[in-house]
Amino acid sequence: MSKKISIAIDAMGGDNSPDKTIEGVKLFIKKNNLKDDFILNIFGKEELIHQKLKEFNISSNNIRVFDSKKVVSNDETPLTAIKNSKDTSMWNCIKHQVDGQSDISLSAGNTGVLLVISRMILKMMDNVSRPALAGLWPNKLGMNVVLDLGANIECDEQNLVDFAELGSALFKSLFSNEKPKVSLLNIGSEEVKGTEVLKKTSKILKKISSEENFIYKGYIEGNEMMDGNSNVIVTDGFTGNVALKTAEGTAKYITNNLKKSLTKNFFSKISLLFSYFSLKEFKDRLDPRKYNGAILLGLNGPVVKSHGGIDSFGFYQSINLCYRIIKGNLMSEIKKNLNHSKNV
Amino acid sequence: MSKKISIAIDAMGGDNSPDKTIEGVKLFIKKNNLKDDFILNIFGKEELIHQKLKEFNISSNNIRVFDSKKVVSNDETPLTAIKNSKDTSMWNCIKHQVDGQSDISLSAGNTGVLLVISRMILKMMDNVSRPALAGLWPNKLGMNVVLDLGANIECDEQNLVDFAELGSALFKSLFSNEKPKVSLLNIGSEEVKGTEVLKKTSKILKKISSEENFIYKGYIEGNEMMDGNSNVIVTDGFTGNVALKTAEGTAKYITNNLKKSLTKNFFSKISLLFSYFSLKEFKDRLDPRKYNGAILLGLNGPVVKSHGGIDSFGFYQSINLCYRIIKGNLMSEIKKNLNHSKNV
Repeated sequence: MSKKISIAIDAMGGDNSPDKTIEGVKLFIKKNNLKDDFILNIFGKEELIHQKLKEFNISSNNIRVFDSKKVVSNDETPLTAIKNSKDTSMWNCIKHQVDGQSDISLSAGNTGVLLVISRMILKMMDNVSRPALAGLWPNKLGMNVVLDLGANIECDEQNLVDFAELGSALFKSLFSNEKPKVSLLNIGSEEVKGTEVLKKTSKILKKISSEENFIYKGYIEGNEMMDGNSNVIVTDGFTGNVALKTAEGTAKYITNNLKKSLTKNFFSKISLLFSYFSLKEFKDRLDPRKYNGAILLGLNGPVVKSHGGIDSFGFYQSINLCYRIIKGNLMSEIKKNLNHSKNV
Repeated sequence: MSKKISIAIDAMGGDNSPDKTIEGVKLFIKKNNLKDDFILNIFGKEELIHQKLKEFNISSNNIRVFDSKKVVSNDETPLTAIKNSKDTSMWNCIKHQVDGQSDISLSAGNTGVLLVISRMILKMMDNVSRPALAGLWPNKLGMNVVLDLGANIECDEQNLVDFAELGSALFKSLFSNEKPKVSLLNIGSEEVKGTEVLKKTSKILKKISSEENFIYKGYIEGNEMMDGNSNVIVTDGFTGNVALKTAEGTAKYITNNLKKSLTKNFFSKISLLFSYFSLKEFKDRLDPRKYNGAILLGLNGPVVKSHGGIDSFGFYQSINLCYRIIKGNLMSEIKKNLNHSKNV
C-alpha cells in the first residue's frame, strides 16, 4: 500500500470559520467517499471542531483532529507573527508538515503571517532564490499557472527564472497530460520591449527551454494571457497581483452589467427563462471559487492559501487543489526541473 | 468670435487608412453639423484625401487638406524615426501644432514614432519630468483617467506625482462637473504596502492634495479600479499597460464565453429575441471603440494616439476626444495644477 496523501488544514482561518472550513471538508469527503488514499489533519479548537463535525454530520476514517488553543488574528502583522503565532492552528499545520506527518498545508487565515511562518518553519529549497505565490487562471483551452502573485514586489532575473521552474513543475503536477509552455509577461512581444531584468530573464529561459522541463514561448502581453498559447505565465509579484486583481474587477464589472441588463425589463426577464441553463453553465465556468487557492512554492513543501472571504464551496476547491498537487508529485517535479536547468 | 478648435489629423496612419480616417471624419462632421467652432486639418496624400472626401460625400467648410507625400511605415523604429519621418503626414500634424495652427494632433499610426517625434517637436513642458500616455477606462459611476499606459516603463516619485497633476487636469477638461479623485495603483491599501517609490509618491500626493487641483484618495488595488471611488488612477507605464491589456483580454474572454452560451441551443437562441435590446445596450456600454484614444500629456500641446486597428467609428470617437479636450481647456488646466502644487 502506498503512502496516503496527508493534508494539514487550518480550520480557524478566514471569515466564518470553522463553519466554512468544516463544511468544505464535508464537501471533499462526499466527493471522494470511494477513495481511501488521503488523510485530512484538521487543526483548531478541538472541542469546537468535533462539535462542527457532528453538526455537519461528518464521519470518516480519513479525518484526524489536532487541538490548537490559539488562532492567528487578522490584525497580526508579519513583523510580530513569529513571536505571537507559535502554537496557533496555522503554525501547527506547518509544523506537522515539516515533521513529515503532512504533505501540504492549507489555511484561509492571515496571508502575511502564513508566508512568514511557512518560510521560517519549512525553509527554502536549495537552489531556489525566493519563494513565490502561484495561482490558477482560466484560458480559452484550459488553465494557466500564473506567478508571482504578490510574495515578491521586486524581482531579479534569477527570481523570475526560478518562478518559471516552480510554475512549470506545478503545472505538470496538476495537468500531467499537458506540456508546460512558459511566457514572460511584458508590454510588447518584440525583443527590445520591457525592463533590463525581463530581457536578461528571457535570454536565460531561451537557453534552458527544453522538452523535459518546459518550452519557453517568449513574451506575452496582458490581453494574450487567456489565449491558451501558453499556460505558465511568469511575472514579478507586483505586476502579477495587479493583473490578477484587475482581471477580477473587470469580470465583476461585466457580469454586474450583464445582470442589470438581463433583469431590466419584462422582455429581458422572459429571456432568462429560455437561457437559464446556458447562462448557468456560463456562470459556472467563470465561477471564481473554482480557482480558489494560491500555492506558495519554493519551500521544502507546498502551502496553499485559500481566500479569506471564500465560502465552503471555495474552501472545498482548495482542499481538492492540495490533494491534486500531492497526487501529481509536485515536489519531485520541482526537483527534476531544478536539476535539469542546473545541468544545462 | 472666439478662436476655433483646430485638430490636426494624420489621415494615413493605422490599418485601412485613409478610408477609415476619412469615414471617421464624416461621422464627426455629421454629428456636429450644427457647430461651427472647429477646423479639421487633414494631412496625407492630397489627391487621395480629396478623392476619399468625394467618395464619402463629405463637404464642409470646417475641413482643410494639407499635402504630405510621405507616410510613417509600421516597421519604422523610434531609433530611426527622426531621420526618416520628416515631412510625413504624422510629422506635419505635429509641426502644424507647434506652429500654433492646430491645438491638438491625432494619429492612428506607429505609436513609438509618434511618441518620439511629438516629444522632439513639441518639447516637454517646464516643470514636467516626463510625458505620459493616458487612457479612459469605464467605472461603475462614469469614467476613469488611467496613466501611464506605457510611455515610461520605470518611474520615480517625481514622475508619478507629475502624472497625478496631468491626469487630473485631463479629467477636469473632459468632465468639468466632477472633481478629480486621484488614487495610486498598488497591491494593498495599507501604508506599508508597495515599493519605496510608491510610498514616497503617496506622501507627496497627501501633501499637495487639495480642493483646487485634486483630492488624493490613497492606494487602490486592481479590483477596485472600476468601483468609481476614484477617477484618476496613477501608475508606472509597465503596470498600467499590463493592467489595461489584462482588462481587455478578460473582457474579451467573458463576452466570447457569453456569446457561445447564448447561441448554444434552441432555447438560448430564442432568449436572444427577448433580450435583444437589453443585450445591445449592454454591448454598447462596453464597446471598446468608445474608449479609443490614448492621450500623450506633458508636452507643449496634447497628442492623441488612436488604436491602429480600430474602425471608422472608433476613429470618430478619437476625433471627438480631441475636440472635448481642447474645448475643456486641457493646457490651462495642466498649468493651473502645476502652479498650484509648486506653491504648496
